[in-house]
Amino acid sequence: MSKQFDLLKPHLDRAMALQTAMVLFEWDNETLAPEKAGELTGNVIGILSGEYFQAVNNDEVKELVKACKEDNDLTCEEKAQVRELSKELKKLDCIPKEEYQEFARLAADSARIWSIAKKEDDFGMFAPVLKKVVEFQKKFAGYRAMEGQKKYDVLLHDFEPGFTMELLDKFFQMIKEEVVPLLKAVKASKVLIRDEFLSGDFTDEQQEKIGCFLAEYVGFDFSKGVMATSAHPFTTNLHNKDVRITTHYNNNLDSSLFSVIHEAGHAVYELGIRDDLTQTLVGQGASMGMHESQSRFFENIMGRSRSFWVPIYQKLQEAFPKELSEIGLDSFVMAVNKAEPGLIRTEADELTYSLHVLIRYELEKELIEGELDVEELPGMWADKYEEYLGIRPENAREGVLQDIHWSQGSFGYFPSYALGSAFGAQLYYHMKEEMDFDGLLEEGNVQVICRYLKEHIHQYGKLKDSRTILKDTTGEDFNPEYYIKYLKEKYQSLYQLKQAAPSDR
Amino acid sequence: MSKQFDLLKPHLDRAMALQTAMVLFEWDNETLAPEKAGELTGNVIGILSGEYFQAVNNDEVKELVKACKEDNDLTCEEKAQVRELSKELKKLDCIPKEEYQEFARLAADSARIWSIAKKEDDFGMFAPVLKKVVEFQKKFAGYRAMEGQKKYDVLLHDFEPGFTMELLDKFFQMIKEEVVPLLKAVKASKVLIRDEFLSGDFTDEQQEKIGCFLAEYVGFDFSKGVMATSAHPFTTNLHNKDVRITTHYNNNLDSSLFSVIHEAGHAVYELGIRDDLTQTLVGQGASMGMHESQSRFFENIMGRSRSFWVPIYQKLQEAFPKELSEIGLDSFVMAVNKAEPGLIRTEADELTYSLHVLIRYELEKELIEGELDVEELPGMWADKYEEYLGIRPENAREGVLQDIHWSQGSFGYFPSYALGSAFGAQLYYHMKEEMDFDGLLEEGNVQVICRYLKEHIHQYGKLKDSRTILKDTTGEDFNPEYYIKYLKEKYQSLYQLKQAAPSDR
Repeated sequence: MSKQFDLLKPHLDRAMALQTAMVLFEWDNETLAPEKAGELTGNVIGILSGEYFQAVNNDEVKELVKACKEDNDLTCEEKAQVRELSKELKKLDCIPKEEYQEFARLAADSARIWSIAKKEDDFGMFAPVLKKVVEFQKKFAGYRAMEGQKKYDVLLHDFEPGFTMELLDKFFQMIKEEVVPLLKAVKASKVLIRDEFLSGDFTDEQQEKIGCFLAEYVGFDFSKGVMATSAHPFTTNLHNKDVRITTHYNNNLDSSLFSVIHEAGHAVYELGIRDDLTQTLVGQGASMGMHESQSRFFENIMGRSRSFWVPIYQKLQEAFPKELSEIGLDSFVMAVNKAEPGLIRTEADELTYSLHVLIRYELEKELIEGELDVEELPGMWADKYEEYLGIRPENAREGVLQDIHWSQGSFGYFPSYALGSAFGAQLYYHMKEEMDFDGLLEEGNVQVICRYLKEHIHQYGKLKDSRTILKDTTGEDFNPEYYIKYLKEKYQSLYQLKQAAPSDR
Repeated sequence: MSKQFDLLKPHLDRAMALQTAMVLFEWDNETLAPEKAGELTGNVIGILSGEYFQAVNNDEVKELVKACKEDNDLTCEEKAQVRELSKELKKLDCIPKEEYQEFARLAADSARIWSIAKKEDDFGMFAPVLKKVVEFQKKFAGYRAMEGQKKYDVLLHDFEPGFTMELLDKFFQMIKEEVVPLLKAVKASKVLIRDEFLSGDFTDEQQEKIGCFLAEYVGFDFSKGVMATSAHPFTTNLHNKDVRITTHYNNNLDSSLFSVIHEAGHAVYELGIRDDLTQTLVGQGASMGMHESQSRFFENIMGRSRSFWVPIYQKLQEAFPKELSEIGLDSFVMAVNKAEPGLIRTEADELTYSLHVLIRYELEKELIEGELDVEELPGMWADKYEEYLGIRPENAREGVLQDIHWSQGSFGYFPSYALGSAFGAQLYYHMKEEMDFDGLLEEGNVQVICRYLKEHIHQYGKLKDSRTILKDTTGEDFNPEYYIKYLKEKYQSLYQLKQAAPSDR
């Protein structure tokens, strides 16, 4: 270990410990804490987050970071940690402290107002505060931008380093050109897919039992993990020996089964991070998009494939005999892949999902880079849904108010969701060349797939960014063509569409 | 607020936040954390506890404490906080840092070795480390003792301020003189109490449902609290709006029902602490003994009384129809009050419990003040059990190795358990003069009793010590005669013993 890094290490450890405590409070708050605990526990979290800020953002640390950057003896793991810390410090350094604190207060307020506005379906209540949030984000991005750098690119970099608007414009253009017509063809298809058997009065116990089984089946290790319930499913982790997922139970089997597989995908990523990286600044997934690539790979590419269910469908039938005993494997697989335009992103099928993200990308880019006024959002939102998905929200709750992200100032986050799907497809086609993907699934051998992902992706944490991972794994830079190919093959086959000649693309 | 205290406050808040985080980690560890998380989460807790140590034990804080002590403008709440902090600092100041750290390592090791030794029933494995723990505690107490102060009194003060060996010798002497013969009379009694219906194959769901009901019935507020399961039941709290209890389910109804009522007693105490005291150094129960007085009051004095069950026994019968439908209220109440000497303290009935504590008091006093060698403990332990309870442990696991306390260096802790029962009895006889105690219970009105305890005890936190609370509430200093009176009245009646003339005592 370099001598300079040696001196920096205790500061990093302190920051990590405070960060881990905040993660535990957040987990506890979402899964268990009593209703009236919020305000006083909020005091505690406020103090801990101030301590975290102090732990990384002080003159001693800044000096040490500077010295580490000039030190040639650092290992690559140490360099990566210094790089992450440095990024964090630079961000804080550019923004005047008073403005940063003002924004922190605003963001908390804004999320609260958003939640009420959504409940009461009143965009007018939320618009003024959202306007302020947008202004802050534009201002902060302006402070942070390097010469010639676009503001939206600054924000994007926080979630997906290595990606720019230029790259995303092309990506989303391709989605617009390919997925919108594909969806139209699907809607025009005569194929009718039954899925009424996915609804029913399922007990929590039934769902919990099968949820635990599925999580474990796809590689979630309960000796290093916990599963609980919360209003919205999520994954979090204290370190690579304590990774936690939540789920929710309802009367929709699709949501209940695939939400567990999705979160288990996130969890398997965190469980696979190398022991020497966990509890450091590079001991998390490479980026939002790469994380989402794993959860969506587990949920969709693997989890909704016929091969995946071959060895375990009987078990599922036994768990839900009333609904599934008469339903064959093929009917079940068709049902969980049915495409149907809807208004809510989090409930979208695999095909329409990217269109939900496309709409958000176009709008948030205009908010940050263009002159789009917050007041115009609901109308623009509805128009785009009509254009791309063929349906129009009748209220703001099911329209522009549905997601929390903007209220917290998270612009540049949404693209990660679509990028994740595209990363997953690129990895998938490469893996099919390396192994008998479907054969492995059909013999219940998910471990080989997990091991491959761990070896090429999970173990590295943030040592590599997503484009480097794709290059090192597939031998190719990010290439969205695979995603389009995947969606076309899947849905053309499912809906018996005439396949366009390969030259079409 | 005084200007000096104003400067001290942020340090106290920081310490409180770190402390609260450690409480949450401990809770999580006992109730939920995955099996393999221990080591890495241990790193986090180690760092947080170092931060806590730094937060209170630094030159700036010491200067401020000194200044606060000379400041006449402090409110009594502020004074109490300074007093508590000052006590903590004095303790740390007396002990050389290296020795303190050496002991911290030893204590962790010792608890681990104790746990293995207990499992393997091997006192020889534990003896050498216990010897070192005793030596450290003697040395530390020596450093901390004021002129003429006994070492054991120093340790006692950590758990029960206001109590000394002199007072405890009299207390335990009285127990020896009164309870030992009372137990002999009970054992000689012809009255046979049936209790086989308290054992059975109870499901977790049955026990959880009645447990939640009982907790709520005695005042546990689920909007400010959580109930979970753990290996050993305990109560903890983040603040007065988040108090948590655990329970365990087994095939013994007595343990399952009364452990919940016991922990709920602790919890109602913490929930009752004043809003301006919570999240400060005086925002916990007055002492170990006063805390135990409340849990034992709830469990025994209230919870095992006939009046308590009058309004709710039918509900219990409905919850466990197979075992209880044929059992009348009186038989049930007799069964849960049956006295029977056993080897294990935590499973002891109300009558024999104090004898288990007496034995530990006599032995630990000899370890600290006398010349008792650790090697002699198992023999002395067995002899005393034979003398006071009439039974002899056949192994160390059910003998001297049963409790964790000594392994952690907690000498002076055990007396609190017996003191708690005695405080409870003194409060009980006073309350019977102030209100129709049994009448209230019979009409299901536990709230009036809770309100009384909150008003006289709970709200104050550590503003008053236990003797002051007793004086202010009952008009009398600590008086163990009430405890003896309570046990005599209860067991003479239960076992139809000839009552001795009042002049006997």
